[in-house]
Amino acid sequence: MTSPDDDPEHGDAAPQRGAMTRRRALLLGGGGVLGVAAAGAGGFSVGRAEARDEHPSAGAVPFHGPHQAGIATPAQDRLVFGAFDLTTDDAVALHDLLREWTAAAALMTQGQPTGTVAGHPEVPPSDTGEAEGLAASQLTITFGLGRGVFVRDGQDRMGLQSRMPAGLEPLGHLPGDNLDPERSDGDLCVQACANDPQVAFHAIRNLARIARPTAVLRWTQLGFGRTSTTSRDQSTPRNLMGFKDGTRNIKAEDTAAMERFVWVGNDEPQRWLHGGSFLVARRIRMLIESWDRDRLGDQEAVFGRTKVSGAPLTGKDEFDVPDLRARLRDGTPAIGPDAHIRLAAPETNAGQALLRRGYSYTDGIDARTGLLDAGLFFLAFQRDPHRQFAAIQRRLGTSDALNEYIQHTGSGLFAVPPGVRAGGFVGQGLFGR
Amino acid sequence: MTSPDDDPEHGDAAPQRGAMTRRRALLLGGGGVLGVAAAGAGGFSVGRAEARDEHPSAGAVPFHGPHQAGIATPAQDRLVFGAFDLTTDDAVALHDLLREWTAAAALMTQGQPTGTVAGHPEVPPSDTGEAEGLAASQLTITFGLGRGVFVRDGQDRMGLQSRMPAGLEPLGHLPGDNLDPERSDGDLCVQACANDPQVAFHAIRNLARIARPTAVLRWTQLGFGRTSTTSRDQSTPRNLMGFKDGTRNIKAEDTAAMERFVWVGNDEPQRWLHGGSFLVARRIRMLIESWDRDRLGDQEAVFGRTKVSGAPLTGKDEFDVPDLRARLRDGTPAIGPDAHIRLAAPETNAGQALLRRGYSYTDGIDARTGLLDAGLFFLAFQRDPHRQFAAIQRRLGTSDALNEYIQHTGSGLFAVPPGVRAGGFVGQGLFGR
Repeated sequence: MTSPDDDPEHGDAAPQRGAMTRRRALLLGGGGVLGVAAAGAGGFSVGRAEARDEHPSAGAVPFHGPHQAGIATPAQDRLVFGAFDLTTDDAVALHDLLREWTAAAALMTQGQPTGTVAGHPEVPPSDTGEAEGLAASQLTITFGLGRGVFVRDGQDRMGLQSRMPAGLEPLGHLPGDNLDPERSDGDLCVQACANDPQVAFHAIRNLARIARPTAVLRWTQLGFGRTSTTSRDQSTPRNLMGFKDGTRNIKAEDTAAMERFVWVGNDEPQRWLHGGSFLVARRIRMLIESWDRDRLGDQEAVFGRTKVSGAPLTGKDEFDVPDLRARLRDGTPAIGPDAHIRLAAPETNAGQALLRRGYSYTDGIDARTGLLDAGLFFLAFQRDPHRQFAAIQRRLGTSDALNEYIQHTGSGLFAVPPGVRAGGFVGQGLFGR
Repeated sequence: MTSPDDDPEHGDAAPQRGAMTRRRALLLGGGGVLGVAAAGAGGFSVGRAEARDEHPSAGAVPFHGPHQAGIATPAQDRLVFGAFDLTTDDAVALHDLLREWTAAAALMTQGQPTGTVAGHPEVPPSDTGEAEGLAASQLTITFGLGRGVFVRDGQDRMGLQSRMPAGLEPLGHLPGDNLDPERSDGDLCVQACANDPQVAFHAIRNLARIARPTAVLRWTQLGFGRTSTTSRDQSTPRNLMGFKDGTRNIKAEDTAAMERFVWVGNDEPQRWLHGGSFLVARRIRMLIESWDRDRLGDQEAVFGRTKVSGAPLTGKDEFDVPDLRARLRDGTPAIGPDAHIRLAAPETNAGQALLRRGYSYTDGIDARTGLLDAGLFFLAFQRDPHRQFAAIQRRLGTSDALNEYIQHTGSGLFAVPPGVRAGGFVGQGLFGR
């Protein structure tokens, strides 16, 4: 399809890879951060850049910066999300894990293995190898910390309770919740997004490998987004109900809105979180067999939008601002009182908004009902999950016409530390004085 | 990335879409094949071609031909596989279902909806809409028939027992089997492959919608393959063990090998299956945490290949033919007696080979063990599943060094009818005299 020479990002990516190769050499020589990876320095090392059998023309997203990548980054097509539980109460182990994860993420996001795919024959490879030869594919790896890092059973689990941001207090039961504990919570989370599912899977798998024995996977979720290899235009993707989804989302390039709604500011008492965010992850199952039997007119009334164009029922174009005051000739509201776009609109929520990076999911058949288990894995970033996500969801969960067709079956809340400079690690501020 | 004008396939695809639009109009006017879709003919119809907000530049695979598409078709990146159970013993209902499925598949593979995304407001849409605006994305839809169509509980279920090909006799217990009935078997199967997961999901979902109440989904499986949007070269994809997988696979363009190994020939007593094939689907879970702890030298001995290059241990290049007789200086075989490539090689299996279209899968965490449930969804096409798949698997399952790291957790066997001409439907020969 695209030849490497056509790709405008290729020229940028190449020098960065060179830099990362040097960086990796430093890391490997710098104290065995990646465990047995150091064995590769003895002459057996074959990294992804050296052995690559294709050009990494899909490009790499810079890992370092004031914010973690994967939040303001334009949404990639594929998601693998992993929630982990710590198996230790030792803060030093957590510190070391975050340092090792950061080093591995810095490599993988630049198309490099976490260690050696093929090192010494007598030791296990320090990268599992399935991304060997694949491009960086815009991989981003975003880390978050759950409440369990700070408090467990009411106790100061590992001496970090005084560092817990208030935003991590439980969201409590929200209307519409039908949560499965096996798909909820977690002490740590990792959002891996890429335009190649094997690259995203490779990231979570290797982070899980590196995490042992400090942390183990609790649950994972795959997702897919807008997708076609040729569909990189700006059109809004459709959800599995067939409607365009995310039309009024915050635009990541709107830095004023990002400051106002997404990045934790200086008013947060926990300084280590300044420049970070809060992630709310919700697994929203759609009862699609019921939805598919609903008539078109009702489907459009439920959303408040026209199905094909995505225009609000008061407009002609997808991006027309919904006129929430418009009335039909008979005096009834054109966009109903329980329409999704009315209840989710900032105008209805005291001006509150959040940045969402939603992915469709399908997890096969629900064995109890024989129905498809499919829907939306909703990832929302915000500076205050209680005033933003929870407040909006209380309104939606109570009144939204969509509730007949959806259930929230999983939930997680995580504090997302700010980005790091080269040499630092994600969450480092947590361990300072 | 790629602009529509750059795409060499765009020029071909466009006239085909036009043709399909006409074809769809014929279908819709031709007796309500697609149920309520006929309502769309009243003037509310908005098809995908008309409302498309992007060019279908990923192209369409022709639906009609001597063989069903999705077998010799170059493997697409994404798979959604669905196995269905019939809820009726009425052969007429099966006949009608296969006719409706064929009509819907002919449309969807050309980037068209199965009916109207937005028809009359008082009826449910006859296409669920989530593929609206997406390209055909090389979608192929391949149908198969399981033994349950012909025989159930030893009875002639729907008067078709005399039409059952001998190849559908059960494979029986094979070494290495640890099969989950909820991930095995099925009266019917549909393999949907595309380069866009939402397009593949849309296909299975709409076929499931159309199937009601004649058939219901029994199990589904998602898969991903070689993948990076820029990796369309001929390099062999890696499996989740990090090894190149499929190096010695039959090449679909090798028509002599396809005739010899894949297409059912005139020696098959069931004429309706001539030009068809048999599909064996196996869900092969990899115990990847154990694998990741194995040393490199052992991993390479297990496969009989070098990890990074994919070369056999007796060669330098991936495509070097393994020398199964070569010995090391100490007299031991260079490729061990239990090495996977030795046991899977045609040379070891009386010249037998099969065409495989494998996809990696990951289905989250195994709740019982906390380990990742991930591996290979192995789809193999062949003219005789007993002499081909089962014979090879008996050898592999008994001796293969890989057995320590894999388990077969699901299995299905299906007769895949030949392709159809326009106006015909898949499996039509089953109902003739």
